[in-house]
Amino acid sequence: MNIIDKEAPSRAVLEAQLRARIRGKAKPVGSLGRIEDLALQIGMVSGTLRPDLGRAKVLVFAADHGLTAEGVTAYPSAITREIAKMVLAANAGVNVLARASGIDVVLVDAGMLEPLPPHDQLIERRVASGTRNSRLEPAMSPDECAQALEAGRATDAQLADDEVGIVGYGEIGIGNTSAAALVACALTGIDLAALVGPGAGAPALGLEHKRKILEIVWARANIQAISPDERAREALRQFGGFEIAMMAGAMAAAAAERRIIVVDGFISTVAALAAIALYPETRACCVFAHCSAEPGHKALLDHLGARPLLQLDMRLGEGTGAALAIPLIRAAELMLRDMAELPGEHPA
Amino acid sequence: MNIIDKEAPSRAVLEAQLRARIRGKAKPVGSLGRIEDLALQIGMVSGTLRPDLGRAKVLVFAADHGLTAEGVTAYPSAITREIAKMVLAANAGVNVLARASGIDVVLVDAGMLEPLPPHDQLIERRVASGTRNSRLEPAMSPDECAQALEAGRATDAQLADDEVGIVGYGEIGIGNTSAAALVACALTGIDLAALVGPGAGAPALGLEHKRKILEIVWARANIQAISPDERAREALRQFGGFEIAMMAGAMAAAAAERRIIVVDGFISTVAALAAIALYPETRACCVFAHCSAEPGHKALLDHLGARPLLQLDMRLGEGTGAALAIPLIRAAELMLRDMAELPGEHPA
Repeated sequence: MNIIDKEAPSRAVLEAQLRARIRGKAKPVGSLGRIEDLALQIGMVSGTLRPDLGRAKVLVFAADHGLTAEGVTAYPSAITREIAKMVLAANAGVNVLARASGIDVVLVDAGMLEPLPPHDQLIERRVASGTRNSRLEPAMSPDECAQALEAGRATDAQLADDEVGIVGYGEIGIGNTSAAALVACALTGIDLAALVGPGAGAPALGLEHKRKILEIVWARANIQAISPDERAREALRQFGGFEIAMMAGAMAAAAAERRIIVVDGFISTVAALAAIALYPETRACCVFAHCSAEPGHKALLDHLGARPLLQLDMRLGEGTGAALAIPLIRAAELMLRDMAELPGEHPA
Repeated sequence: MNIIDKEAPSRAVLEAQLRARIRGKAKPVGSLGRIEDLALQIGMVSGTLRPDLGRAKVLVFAADHGLTAEGVTAYPSAITREIAKMVLAANAGVNVLARASGIDVVLVDAGMLEPLPPHDQLIERRVASGTRNSRLEPAMSPDECAQALEAGRATDAQLADDEVGIVGYGEIGIGNTSAAALVACALTGIDLAALVGPGAGAPALGLEHKRKILEIVWARANIQAISPDERAREALRQFGGFEIAMMAGAMAAAAAERRIIVVDGFISTVAALAAIALYPETRACCVFAHCSAEPGHKALLDHLGARPLLQLDMRLGEGTGAALAIPLIRAAELMLRDMAELPGEHPA
């Protein structure tokens, strides 16, 4: 892991040194394209010309959503638990994709309807047995929201013990594209309609029904313009879910520790938006893994000015996109640290 | 490694079984996007529903080009050797990118100006000390061309001993974007001008000079319309280089052995075009790793109807793009083989 030297050069000096180092690698200038951009970002985040990011891990945050009672999704909440069990059995989508690159996957129970039996790869951070139905009332109490954010921070703290410097953030939660669309609407001002998509599958009552319900929830919550930090807390509290709030807390904590944050799809990007609102330094640590086929995702990436690494038409969630992007981040790390240099000076 | 059962089902039956298997995985149908397409291809190439592709390796073919005498490139041929030495020292671009995913890199000397000292990661297949100047005469004799293709086949045969089922094909060869543009022109009929780009760096005498020289070489060679197989041999012989011909031979042999062929950038794609002309079955085994920033590459991918996996604005060669794509192929393999299935039948 990197230790940021107390006498570390200023950011501008570090950036100039990194650019010169990348330019001086044994290759035509710029010929590694976006891997060079990633290397610069890794150097800036880790505060060194020779990064050693340590281990990579994917955290999968799971929770249930009271709003599923309104027919906004094709699947029942019981499916959250079934997928979570597959993650622990190491044969869900995220596990096989992560295993292909030797990456560990850990499940965080942020508040599924029912707890799972203890397991080596399970971190128990249950705030409650699912959120409340946000059509009728706020999805969480203010205390629950604070607890979810704090549990995210505590989850991140465990990573330091394992020397994890690259963290992917995935999620499981039937109904969470609805919660995410509402939170994103509050944080970006993008039209709610543009943020509503089919999610895991077209909702039983149709996409138009999902849109109508979300408009009702949005109107009920009546979020007032406040500071970005307060607005993020209020949106998470009003709309949920526990997994989104906990991811946001974990991402903000990871940014404070200068880890590389690998953002997955639509939900994970909404958590990143919330984390950035809570702690703006988070943005500089985020690598956006892919552009999901969920239509609202591209709108959010554009809003953030983020160019995702992969375009593979995926929309599974779980952290599957993050798992596939991590080898590219590792490649950039090794390029910056270990690739041969040309002799001489390399002014930027 | 996969053994294709003598009683293997017909291709159509296998395809239907693979589609049903992928559809039946525990995820919304189609939600792994292009990873699902890759899984289908891997299943078809390996002839099984449960592939085990074995190890992955990147072969880097190096050779020199007589045409460099005509000022078509910014770098002297001596750079071929310098990069080759970095590959053996394990700190060239391809090495660090491959190491990020635990992939071995082997250098094949197909005909550099001078031999390198023996090395564990060096395969010696020198046809000659560089090709002849194709402005004045054919780059190779017919015997040399046959020898290069055969050496490719022999190089592939060594892979079987190591149980390598995924092979990336990269190259080093100052001047080889010129040779590749000419071979591609002969094999695709695309305008030569559209295939000429800056390569590793803008040529000393400018891109217009490079275009002019290549037009002269093209006119001298006066390739006549013959069968695809003969046309490929004639183009390789007239224009070179040894690394392109040897790669083509290795790819065709890999296809016969049902390995996954990971095509890198512009040069590697030209070798794939030649391999397909020599042995059409090669096409089905090719995964196109990325779209290089070398402008002719996109034209060739379009000609092949190929959609590359990555778009990272890279143009380094060496197999760097192939190294980055291999983890995605591995992910698709593990998805097909190990990911949980939903209960019940899954008609395609």
